Amino acid sequence: MNRREFSLSLLAAIPAVAVSARAQQSSAKLRVNGARLNTHLTELAQFGKTPEGGTSRVAYSEADLQARQYAMKLMREAKLDVSVDAAGNIVGRRGGNDATLKPLMIGSHIDSVPAGGSYDGQVGSMGAIEVAQTLSENNVRLRHPLEVVIFQNEEGGTIGSAAISRGLTEQDLNLVTNSKKTIREGIKFIGGDPDKLAGAVRKKGDLAGYVELHIEQGGTLDKEKINIGVVEGIVGVYWWDVTVEGFANHAGTTPMNGRRDALLAAAKYVDAVNRVVTSIPGRQVGTVGKLQAFPGAYNIIPGKVLTSLGLRDLDSAKVKMIFEKIQAEVREIEKSTGTKFDFKQVSDSQPALTDGRFRQIIDEQAKQLGFTTKLLPSGAGHDAQEIADLCPIGMVFIPSRDGISHSPREFSNAEDIANGANVLLHTLVKIDTTI
Amino acid sequence: MNRREFSLSLLAAIPAVAVSARAQQSSAKLRVNGARLNTHLTELAQFGKTPEGGTSRVAYSEADLQARQYAMKLMREAKLDVSVDAAGNIVGRRGGNDATLKPLMIGSHIDSVPAGGSYDGQVGSMGAIEVAQTLSENNVRLRHPLEVVIFQNEEGGTIGSAAISRGLTEQDLNLVTNSKKTIREGIKFIGGDPDKLAGAVRKKGDLAGYVELHIEQGGTLDKEKINIGVVEGIVGVYWWDVTVEGFANHAGTTPMNGRRDALLAAAKYVDAVNRVVTSIPGRQVGTVGKLQAFPGAYNIIPGKVLTSLGLRDLDSAKVKMIFEKIQAEVREIEKSTGTKFDFKQVSDSQPALTDGRFRQIIDEQAKQLGFTTKLLPSGAGHDAQEIADLCPIGMVFIPSRDGISHSPREFSNAEDIANGANVLLHTLVKIDTTI
Repeated sequence: MNRREFSLSLLAAIPAVAVSARAQQSSAKLRVNGARLNTHLTELAQFGKTPEGGTSRVAYSEADLQARQYAMKLMREAKLDVSVDAAGNIVGRRGGNDATLKPLMIGSHIDSVPAGGSYDGQVGSMGAIEVAQTLSENNVRLRHPLEVVIFQNEEGGTIGSAAISRGLTEQDLNLVTNSKKTIREGIKFIGGDPDKLAGAVRKKGDLAGYVELHIEQGGTLDKEKINIGVVEGIVGVYWWDVTVEGFANHAGTTPMNGRRDALLAAAKYVDAVNRVVTSIPGRQVGTVGKLQAFPGAYNIIPGKVLTSLGLRDLDSAKVKMIFEKIQAEVREIEKSTGTKFDFKQVSDSQPALTDGRFRQIIDEQAKQLGFTTKLLPSGAGHDAQEIADLCPIGMVFIPSRDGISHSPREFSNAEDIANGANVLLHTLVKIDTTI
Repeated sequence: MNRREFSLSLLAAIPAVAVSARAQQSSAKLRVNGARLNTHLTELAQFGKTPEGGTSRVAYSEADLQARQYAMKLMREAKLDVSVDAAGNIVGRRGGNDATLKPLMIGSHIDSVPAGGSYDGQVGSMGAIEVAQTLSENNVRLRHPLEVVIFQNEEGGTIGSAAISRGLTEQDLNLVTNSKKTIREGIKFIGGDPDKLAGAVRKKGDLAGYVELHIEQGGTLDKEKINIGVVEGIVGVYWWDVTVEGFANHAGTTPMNGRRDALLAAAKYVDAVNRVVTSIPGRQVGTVGKLQAFPGAYNIIPGKVLTSLGLRDLDSAKVKMIFEKIQAEVREIEKSTGTKFDFKQVSDSQPALTDGRFRQIIDEQAKQLGFTTKLLPSGAGHDAQEIADLCPIGMVFIPSRDGISHSPREFSNAEDIANGANVLLHTLVKIDTTI
């Protein structure tokens, strides 16, 4: 509905339920401008464009700075009140009708991995601005204040969103990023103030809710031809460094039954990880991404292997159970190969579940727009997982072609992008009137 | 027997069989000076001695040069006529009684791997000099001329022995060795002449036979408490570079059933190599010594793996059969994992069998000396494998403690060393009279 209709409805002092019903009825016609949204994505992709057709726009790079200026220009065009917080996040504000309500937040990030794609984070960022623009053009004022956010340095470890939820540590600030700048230097570079980070931190309850639109970065929606993914949560990510110790010996003179081959043991371990993870129903994943044998010569039985373990699931108890099953397999491998394994945990990012009401609203709104939906976990990390500490969160996924991401081959089509932004728009409007 | 006895036997013009019987009877009392031999080994170990108690005496190093001078001094003391051939091999000659016969050769090498031990090659070299010294002290003159040889740069690829059998190529000469010198520079450094290498090459039939004493470098004799190993042959060594291609993808967003994990495929391959090689009776060995996953990150499914294959056996047809069985397994792994393997052969050193008569003589002589024996293959390469192209060869092994070699922990005890030299001595004398 437009502003005049909204004002009339207020003047009429119709009871809240009726207002909500009328608002819903008229807002049901709202649609983002899909063509404009896709043009914005194309324009954004110029900053850090690579010869392969992807985007290399690591946080705190010159390309990042230029892309941020472009995003702020679009925010202003959408009539948002734009500022950069002490952590360097871009926030575009829009007032709401009820001064007692906390803001609803939508957004994502526009930094990329080195030699990445032009959709990861960028669809959600441009989509959120487009939603604000659509609300503005249609003179729709929400009950809640709206914040459109572009979090800085998501790819370097959800740094900007962590800065407003848990806060950054000295250790975080000293990390050297892909731009060669430390996070501290990077924050200064993009207009934040590393000395005033405390001021950027929000408290639990400071936000009414957060919804993020994102590409799936997996192949489920694309393969199953589903329009919209309703995200159940962001999986916990658990990483271990694994060392296998055997005994390096002459590959010619040591008989097969006299070997303590660290690589044979590691091979059995890699196979066991896959077997254990796939033997249990569910969407957990387990990956051995690193493996190197030492000394690494044709004619020496490997005495040592450095490898890794990565497990992800929405349920941390399930991850624990899988890890224990892997450990039981490893004990057997140690016995049969005369080797010794050591596991050292290097990361344990806990799962972040989305809010049940938000999931239901996303699903309903998508279906009302005529889209098919599927409930699915996010295997990748997102800013939403940090914001989950502050308020209820929701995430809307759109298909990624062949599930490819963090690659110049990353691609989502224009229609899916517009669909996702429309779901974000209607989810926001619905949440605004129901929570 | 001493020279007088031998002269008498000649004068008596007793038929050959009887001469042989009498010579055998008196030479049966011959024994090397085990204490002197072990002293020589201790003295030799000073050249390139490492703090860990091993020897680092790579070919063409200063330590190698000094050790060679020491060996030549011992050869002269053993009344050998010492020279360095164009390839840099040290040859100590001793005339025989029959001018029509080709020389019998005994010897080994004194260069070591970096941070190696003090027995590999060195026992056989000092043992051969001790045999010559023993013959000299006892005034025993063989029918055949004797050549005591110290081959240069065995550890860099049996270079000195190759130089007298197949000859060295330009490519060989340009190889940079562990001493940082090319082989060409190294040959000059140790007194050879790389421009006259053709003169060092021997033809098939130029030698009557070659026998090499060596430490086992494996653990069979030590474990089974056997005094002497009678070597069946030097195994063929076959190496392949193996590349596994999958598809690198996000470890969080790619479901288990949507992966083409090159490391999972490589793990199944490593396990298959072990399973195939151990499922067939025999002493063949198969080793995957190299393996690295790329890109090698916790959160990326490996898209590529570089690995290797090494197979060794006395029977090249058996190696071929094993390779084919591994290939059949690989085809199945490719299917089940959606990956592609590529094998590129980088080495195919053929097996070199020892001479049946030599094996029998070594075994008989060892038993007559009161030693237990075992027929076994040599899993490691030796100079003897090059000389096998020129004449019948034999090899005598003595125990290596725990089978450790190419390590400061390499060790053979003084008694085993003396035993080995006595077997070499009696094998030489017996061959001299029977072939």
